[in-house]
Amino acid sequence: MNAGIDQSAAVLRQPVADTQLPFTSARLPFDQVRLDRLLDDAGIDVLVVSSKHNIQYLLGGYRFFFFDHFDANGISRYLPLLVYPKGDPGRALYVGHGMEEAYEKELGKFWMSDTAAAATSVGAMAQAIARLNKLGLPNPRIGVERSFLPADAEEALRRAFPGATIVEAIRPLETLRARKTPTELAYLREASDRVVDAMLTVMASHGPGSTKRELVEALRREEVARGLAFEYCLVASGASLNRAPSEVVWREGDILSLDSGGNYRGYIGDLCRMAILGEPDAELRDLLAEVDAVQLAARTPIRPGNRGREIYAVAEDVLKRTKIAAWTDFVAHGMGLVTHEAPRLANRGSFQYPPDHADLPLEEGMVISIETTLKHPRRGFIKLEDTVAVTADGWEGFGDAGRGWNRGGTKIASR
Amino acid sequence: MNAGIDQSAAVLRQPVADTQLPFTSARLPFDQVRLDRLLDDAGIDVLVVSSKHNIQYLLGGYRFFFFDHFDANGISRYLPLLVYPKGDPGRALYVGHGMEEAYEKELGKFWMSDTAAAATSVGAMAQAIARLNKLGLPNPRIGVERSFLPADAEEALRRAFPGATIVEAIRPLETLRARKTPTELAYLREASDRVVDAMLTVMASHGPGSTKRELVEALRREEVARGLAFEYCLVASGASLNRAPSEVVWREGDILSLDSGGNYRGYIGDLCRMAILGEPDAELRDLLAEVDAVQLAARTPIRPGNRGREIYAVAEDVLKRTKIAAWTDFVAHGMGLVTHEAPRLANRGSFQYPPDHADLPLEEGMVISIETTLKHPRRGFIKLEDTVAVTADGWEGFGDAGRGWNRGGTKIASR
Repeated sequence: MNAGIDQSAAVLRQPVADTQLPFTSARLPFDQVRLDRLLDDAGIDVLVVSSKHNIQYLLGGYRFFFFDHFDANGISRYLPLLVYPKGDPGRALYVGHGMEEAYEKELGKFWMSDTAAAATSVGAMAQAIARLNKLGLPNPRIGVERSFLPADAEEALRRAFPGATIVEAIRPLETLRARKTPTELAYLREASDRVVDAMLTVMASHGPGSTKRELVEALRREEVARGLAFEYCLVASGASLNRAPSEVVWREGDILSLDSGGNYRGYIGDLCRMAILGEPDAELRDLLAEVDAVQLAARTPIRPGNRGREIYAVAEDVLKRTKIAAWTDFVAHGMGLVTHEAPRLANRGSFQYPPDHADLPLEEGMVISIETTLKHPRRGFIKLEDTVAVTADGWEGFGDAGRGWNRGGTKIASR
Repeated sequence: MNAGIDQSAAVLRQPVADTQLPFTSARLPFDQVRLDRLLDDAGIDVLVVSSKHNIQYLLGGYRFFFFDHFDANGISRYLPLLVYPKGDPGRALYVGHGMEEAYEKELGKFWMSDTAAAATSVGAMAQAIARLNKLGLPNPRIGVERSFLPADAEEALRRAFPGATIVEAIRPLETLRARKTPTELAYLREASDRVVDAMLTVMASHGPGSTKRELVEALRREEVARGLAFEYCLVASGASLNRAPSEVVWREGDILSLDSGGNYRGYIGDLCRMAILGEPDAELRDLLAEVDAVQLAARTPIRPGNRGREIYAVAEDVLKRTKIAAWTDFVAHGMGLVTHEAPRLANRGSFQYPPDHADLPLEEGMVISIETTLKHPRRGFIKLEDTVAVTADGWEGFGDAGRGWNRGGTKIASR
């Protein structure tokens, strides 16, 4: 996403005089004005970002392929760090692995001119510390993501700057990511469509006797065949509420839920669809229709300006008038590079974060995952999860196919 | 791997009297005697393990599927913790995610009777702290993996036990893993064979005009189709030494190296194989033969009792007499759940760890990755990477197929 950016190191390393063109936000793959304002609000002078998702965001989609799936490296770990001095991107530093400096820099993947490499968590922090020293900020307020910063690296940082204040930066960074660009929306739409398409293929191509483990493995292959990176699949069958892959067999008459996340260029498609081997009886049709009604009701208040909590209000109003209310949970939450991110809409269940968007207006470009989960004591696990983007005048559903009872085993390959 | 284990919580929660059968190592999926001795040597009273690979090892192969590929969870992260008091597995605690307690415990995945759940890194550590308090160790020496322990979680631990000593536990844990069981060896053999098979399929099924990115994407699909989790692929073509996936095209006459890691049940197959579009000329045949000679020489000293550094001594003796010596690097290192782990055989290049096995005897069950990398200034990147297990009387190569010049495009599907 940085193609065509002039990365003349000589220009950027020189102090920017007033008469020179400053490092403009047009060169950056994120909204610098918005980031700097968020850092101001959080009292952060300089960021030292360490999570893969925030580094990907700030590097305009770049994620080092070698450590996409694991971190362990020798007796330490891969620790990418991005040092971003507020208002001064020309003095930013990216610390990666040696292969990133050798291969990815040559391909023009980095918008900053200065990069460094390290092989351990403490080694990476040593590079960041050297840059912080050059910045010369007196008693800096350093923003870090403490749950994504290894203890040994943070200790090195604190020792180097005993007068510094360490500030948690997760919230301003996720607020920065909350409004998606058209490119990000396209990725999320692709991810959602492909995940659902993969699910429908697996449901149709498997019949009685398939184990839950086989169904998950098939879904992994179908997602990867569609250009996604498979993340996980929760799967329940029959009357069981257990959603772990196992040797449990899908039998004639059994319902099946597939709830899977797969990412397209880092952006997650996370949806849940239902299937049955045979025909759903009247009760099953009714139960899924009630879940569907809650799901669709939740979309109706979605438009820029409405408060986040209205989604809950409408959905719960519908839910409480159904027969399934006693066994059903409704949740809605932002999603993007992370499965649960801003906007945060409610403080309940396992989502115990300050619901900062419950009383804030929804904004165009936000993307919301909506989930209605029925744990029926006799009929099993019945759930729909949908992805809905906030558009200029309302909403758009991503991956909206297959929201009814899909019939299992209708396209089993002949042997 | 814990099938059939009696997990009667009532028995395990009671103090073990002398007349009772203690919690025996036969119940554990790892060698408790060896672990306790390693902890003694390291001066560790209790472990609080947090890396996915060491938790997988200590849980006998278990890895929570939902967070296999990512960690971010809300405004914090997934942080599994395993509290293991030395010599006292009956009082161990596993702290996972709520879904693990709901789904995986029911499936009997945990050998310890006590488990807990948390939704944040600090929440997980709070559960571990509660267990440590119950253990009642005065001024405990707590072993942690600091590069895999988030700063906020370590801070909570230090505040809870100001008299404790925090001890780095990465080395004793990787030493514990260094000798593989027959099951682990079988997984590594499968991973290696399948990675190579996937590579040979991709090489044969792609011809002139394929981009490096397309080749990597095809390899991802072929590995996943073989039941592997794809980790990464380094790829170089033509005369370039750049190994990042990109839009660079594989052309007639170009060489190609595929260096990929894919895991089978967490155990990594990591091999490099060569291909060419066309026929290799005499020089290319000669260059790969020299690389191959170094690789095969390195195997000859591999047997229990020989010191690790003998692998280097023999390989470098062969290498220095070749024409490629000036452009060629040789490395050998242990592998398993982590791409570079014990035994550590040399302190050079980017592998700057104490080479603790350079002067220690190799042991049956160790698995060694051997790499000879020729960065030829005119002909390009020519490399073989092999996986060799130490057997009772010598060695066994895993995934030894396709070690010569594989011809590209010989099996391109007709349209």
